[in-house]
Amino acid sequence: MNDAGAVAAVRAYIDDHRAAFLDDLAEWLRIPSVSAQPEHAADVRRSADWLAAHLRRTGFPTAEVWETEGAPAVFAEWPSEDPDAPTVLVYGHHDVQPAALEDGWDSDPFEPVVRGNRLYARGAADDKGQVLFHTLGVRAHLAATGRTAPAVNLKLLVEGEEESGSPNFRALVERHRDRVAADAVIVSDTGMWSRDTPTVCTGMRGLAECEIELSGPDQDIHSGSFGGAVPNPATAAGRLVAALHDEHERVAVPGFYDGIVELTERERQLFAELPFDEAEWLRTAKSHAPHGEAGHTTLERVWARPTAEVNGIGGGYQGAGGKTIIPSSALLKLSFRLVAGQDPERVEKAVSAWVAEQLPAGIRHTITFSGATRPCLTPLDHPALQSVARAMGRAFEQDIRFTREGGSGPAADLQDVIGAPVLFLGISVPSDGWHAPNEKVELDLLLKGVETSAYLWGDLAPH
Amino acid sequence: MNDAGAVAAVRAYIDDHRAAFLDDLAEWLRIPSVSAQPEHAADVRRSADWLAAHLRRTGFPTAEVWETEGAPAVFAEWPSEDPDAPTVLVYGHHDVQPAALEDGWDSDPFEPVVRGNRLYARGAADDKGQVLFHTLGVRAHLAATGRTAPAVNLKLLVEGEEESGSPNFRALVERHRDRVAADAVIVSDTGMWSRDTPTVCTGMRGLAECEIELSGPDQDIHSGSFGGAVPNPATAAGRLVAALHDEHERVAVPGFYDGIVELTERERQLFAELPFDEAEWLRTAKSHAPHGEAGHTTLERVWARPTAEVNGIGGGYQGAGGKTIIPSSALLKLSFRLVAGQDPERVEKAVSAWVAEQLPAGIRHTITFSGATRPCLTPLDHPALQSVARAMGRAFEQDIRFTREGGSGPAADLQDVIGAPVLFLGISVPSDGWHAPNEKVELDLLLKGVETSAYLWGDLAPH
Ligand SMILES: [Zn+2]
Ligand SMILES: [Zn+2]
Repeated sequence: MNDAGAVAAVRAYIDDHRAAFLDDLAEWLRIPSVSAQPEHAADVRRSADWLAAHLRRTGFPTAEVWETEGAPAVFAEWPSEDPDAPTVLVYGHHDVQPAALEDGWDSDPFEPVVRGNRLYARGAADDKGQVLFHTLGVRAHLAATGRTAPAVNLKLLVEGEEESGSPNFRALVERHRDRVAADAVIVSDTGMWSRDTPTVCTGMRGLAECEIELSGPDQDIHSGSFGGAVPNPATAAGRLVAALHDEHERVAVPGFYDGIVELTERERQLFAELPFDEAEWLRTAKSHAPHGEAGHTTLERVWARPTAEVNGIGGGYQGAGGKTIIPSSALLKLSFRLVAGQDPERVEKAVSAWVAEQLPAGIRHTITFSGATRPCLTPLDHPALQSVARAMGRAFEQDIRFTREGGSGPAADLQDVIGAPVLFLGISVPSDGWHAPNEKVELDLLLKGVETSAYLWGDLAPH
Repeated sequence: MNDAGAVAAVRAYIDDHRAAFLDDLAEWLRIPSVSAQPEHAADVRRSADWLAAHLRRTGFPTAEVWETEGAPAVFAEWPSEDPDAPTVLVYGHHDVQPAALEDGWDSDPFEPVVRGNRLYARGAADDKGQVLFHTLGVRAHLAATGRTAPAVNLKLLVEGEEESGSPNFRALVERHRDRVAADAVIVSDTGMWSRDTPTVCTGMRGLAECEIELSGPDQDIHSGSFGGAVPNPATAAGRLVAALHDEHERVAVPGFYDGIVELTERERQLFAELPFDEAEWLRTAKSHAPHGEAGHTTLERVWARPTAEVNGIGGGYQGAGGKTIIPSSALLKLSFRLVAGQDPERVEKAVSAWVAEQLPAGIRHTITFSGATRPCLTPLDHPALQSVARAMGRAFEQDIRFTREGGSGPAADLQDVIGAPVLFLGISVPSDGWHAPNEKVELDLLLKGVETSAYLWGDLAPH
C-alpha cells in the first residue's frame, strides 16, 4: 500500500470508530480517579479495572492491574508476530487532579460534555484522552496494514499516582524490570506547542532539591545588645542565596556545569524559529520581566539550561510589625533543574561542599536532599525520535518541530531503569487547562493523536 | 562640711533609714504592674498611685499621676531654693515584665524576699529598685547638707509602659514639654559593668526599622516551567541581604555612615581596659563566634558602631518537604542600630533609595519604616557626666569607668524633646536577670545607688 493509501485507510477506520471511541473515553472520564484524595481510592481502582478491561477488548492479549504501595497501575502487552520487532513501552497515567464544580467549572468535571470541537472533563487531556488515543490507534494500525498484531511489541504502563508525585513508580518499574523492558519509551503525558505548530518534545530537565537549616544563636537574641557582633543566620541565608549565581546569572556552585550537554547550533536555531511571543509567555508566567542566564533566550533558559531557584526562605520574625531580634535559625529550600550530562548525585555533592565553604564561623548547618530526578534528552537525529516526528507529520500534514520541557517527571525513571530513549508524544495544547477548571481536549487534535499512533508502530519497526 | 564628713553623714542617714526604705520598696514590688497584660491594668494604676503617694511622703511638693492613651505615668517635682539652680529630670518606669512562679522562679515573683545580700522580686532591678533609690537619696542629700530643698530643681518622670515599648511616651513628653524641661536628664533604667567595675553609661544606639515586601510573579509559579527565566523575589531578598554589607562587614548603603561621631582614641582605650571576657560574652549572646565590622572589637561593635541586621526573612514554601515553586513574594524585616551623628530619617531615605536601586526588572517592592529612635551620646568631658561619675565614685570609693549601651530606648525621646544631655545612672549588674525568672537586686549595690543619688544633686549644682 502506498503512503496515500495507508493514510486513507487509517482515516477511514478512525472515522468509522470515533463515536464508539469517544463513548469509551467518556465512560472512563466519569470515574473520578483522583489519586490525591483518599475518598477516591476506590475510584482510582475502578479506573484501573476499567482500563485493563478496555485494553483486553482492544485486543491486548495481556492486561493486568499492578499493585503498588499506593494506587494501582495498569500494564498491558501485545507482542508482534515479527520475531525481530522492536519493543515499545507507552507511558501514561489514569489518575487525575482533584476537581469540583465550585472551582469554576462550567459543567460537572466528571460528566464529560462536548461543546463544539471540545470535550470537557477532568482528565480529558491529562491524561486519559492521551492514553486512550493509543487504543484506537493500534486498531487503526492493524486495520490499515492488515496485521493481526502490531508491527512492534507494544507495551503500555499506565500509573495511578502521577498526580500525587509518583511516589511508588520507581519501585514498581524496578520490580517489573523484565516485563517493562523496551527499546524505546513513548511518554504520552505532555503537549505540543500549539494547534498550528505541532511539536515533539525531546527531553525534560532533571531535579535536585535540598533544604538547608542554618543555626546561629541558641535562641533569638536582642539585636540591640548583640547586633553587629555575632553572625546572623538570616543574613547567612541571604548571602548563600546571593552567592548561588554569578553576575551572568550562571549558577556559581563549582562543578555545577561539569559535563553538561550544550545546545547545538541547530537546536538553538530550531528553538528560535518557534513562534514564541515573549509578552504572552510572561503573562502565562504571571511575571513582569524576563530574567536569567546571560547569552540565552527565554526558551533556552527554561528548556535547556540548568537552574538554581529558591523555593522557600524563612527565618526570624515574619509577623506584623517589627521585632528587634537576631534570629536563632534560618531555612532555605533550593531546587536545581538539571540538563543532560548532569547527575543529581554529583550536583548534590557539589552543592553540599559549596554550602559548607560559604558559611562563616558561628553558623552551623544541616543540608538534606530529596526528590532527585535525572534529566532526559533524546538527540534530534535519534531514529525513534525521527519516527515519532514522521508519524505525527503524516497525521498533521506538516513538518513537526521540536521542543523540550522545563519540568521533571517520572519519564526519567523509565529511562534509568529500562535504559532506553524516552520520546514524548502528546497532542494537548496550552489552552487545555491541565490541573485547572474546564480542562478539555480538542477533538480533532485527539483524533490526530489516534492517527499518529496508527502510523507510529509501523514506522518504528524495521522496514 | 568636708568630703569625709559629707560621706559619713550620707551613710549614717542611709543606715538609719534603710529598713523603712526596703519595706517601702517591698510594698511597691508586691503590686504586679505588668503593662503588657490587660488583666493587670488596675495594678499598673495602683502602682502609679502608690508611687505618687510615696513621692509626696518623701517631700516632693508636687507628685501627679499623668494619664496617657495607655498606662499612667507619674511626674513629681521638688524645686530648689537656689534661684540659679539647674533643673534635672530623672527618668524611670514603674511597670514590669510579666512573671509567674511556673516560669522557673524560686519564690513568688510578686512576694519580695531577701536571701543574703539579694532582694528577689519582679521589678527589683528593672526598674522599681532603681527608681526608688532616688527617694532615699534625696532625703540623705537634704539631711547631710542641712537643706530643706534639693540643690537642683529635681523632677521625676516615671512611665508605666516601658516594658510595652513606650507607645505613648513621646506624646506624653511633648504634651508636657514645659513641665519636663530640664538641663540634664538622668536615666535610671540601665546597669553597670559588674560589681567590681562600676560604670556610667554614656549613650545608647538609635534605631531605624523597615519591612520590605518584594513581589515577583502574581502567584506562585512552577519552577520547572518557568525556573531560570523570570526573577525570583526570594532570590532578590537574599541578594538585598547580601548587598547590605561589604566585605569588611560595613553597611554598604551609600551615605549610611555620613556624619557619624567616631570613637575617640581615648574611648577605644577605655573600652579596651574593661575586663571583657569574650568567651563569657559569647555565652551570654548564646552565640558561637564573634562576627562584625573589621577593625573594631566586640564592645565597639555593640556599643559604638551602627549596624544592619535581618530580624526576619520569609518567602515561598517553608513547610515540611519541598515544593518546586518560584514564590510570588518575599519579605524582609531589617533594623539598623544608629550611633551619634546618624539621623533615622536620613538613614531611612538612604535605605529606601538603595533598595530601589538594587532590585532587578520584574521585582516590585514596598518599603515601610517604623519605630525610629535617635541615638544619644554624652561626650566624656561633659560636666554633668563628670558629676555622675564623681558621685558614683564617692559611693563606690573607686574610679568609675564608662560604657555605652547597644540597645535603644525612650531616653532618646527625652533628649529630643527636652534638648538636654542624657546621662545613665544604674547600679544593676548583668546577673540581675532583667526580664527573666528570679530577677533580683543586690542590696549593697542598691544602697550605693541611694548614696550616689545623695551626692549627685549637690555636684550638679553650681558651687
Ligand atoms: Zn499528566
Ligand atoms: Zn527597664
